[in-house]
Amino acid sequence: HLHRKCSPSALRNSILTLKTEVEAGASGFSVAGGGNEGIFIKKVLKESPASKVFSLREGDQLLSATIFFDNIKYEDALKILQYSEPYRVQFSLKRKISGKEELEHFHSTAQYKKERLSQSALVLLLSPLTK
Amino acid sequence: HLHRKCSPSALRNSILTLKTEVEAGASGFSVAGGGNEGIFIKKVLKESPASKVFSLREGDQLLSATIFFDNIKYEDALKILQYSEPYRVQFSLKRKISGKEELEHFHSTAQYKKERLSQSALVLLLSPLTK
Repeated sequence: HLHRKCSPSALRNSILTLKTEVEAGASGFSVAGGGNEGIFIKKVLKESPASKVFSLREGDQLLSATIFFDNIKYEDALKILQYSEPYRVQFSLKRKISGKEELEHFHSTAQYKKERLSQSALVLLLSPLTK
Repeated sequence: HLHRKCSPSALRNSILTLKTEVEAGASGFSVAGGGNEGIFIKKVLKESPASKVFSLREGDQLLSATIFFDNIKYEDALKILQYSEPYRVQFSLKRKISGKEELEHFHSTAQYKKERLSQSALVLLLSPLTK
């Protein structure tokens, strides 16, 4: 429980970063700001998904948005990728390793990534296709 | 080392999920697909950031993109939020907890979130502003 870990006096006048629910249909809010200032939640409609599902509050700063591409329209994915091109992004992707060549290719990629990324690279073995 | 954890025979014919570098300027690639099929990397230009910085490969499936809103133009943030509205999203946000009322409000939100989110909610205390 948050109550036990942080006393009210410690929590008051603090800055928290939090992650919202992963859900579709983030509607019912507006944003303001931009540039150096950052993007802030300006208005949240009561009873909207923004309020009820995502628990957004006026004044919250949006640090990042993760958009999941399952069942996304090609055109919408394209627009999102185009608009985000100038900014810092991170992709989560699925890759098939199907042969020796690709495996070696992957190994060199993984090493390359390991050197460059250190903490940020997460490689997770899901399920071998060979039985 | 990946080499030690997974032998080549275990890695071959496998599906991996990986996260790319967090960087600005993800240019030099095209996508295809959409809907049930998913979004796939269609073409990656050699020597482009997509290839060199993000290590994207043709055939990779894009599962998600995290866009960081630092120094983003208001109009671009708005477009990204509008285009992603129908799809699953997760926001990372920064909230100031400045008084007793807000604190209690936060507590009820946190509990609400705790019930609904279980694994996905991450709450991290950054830095108390009171000294």
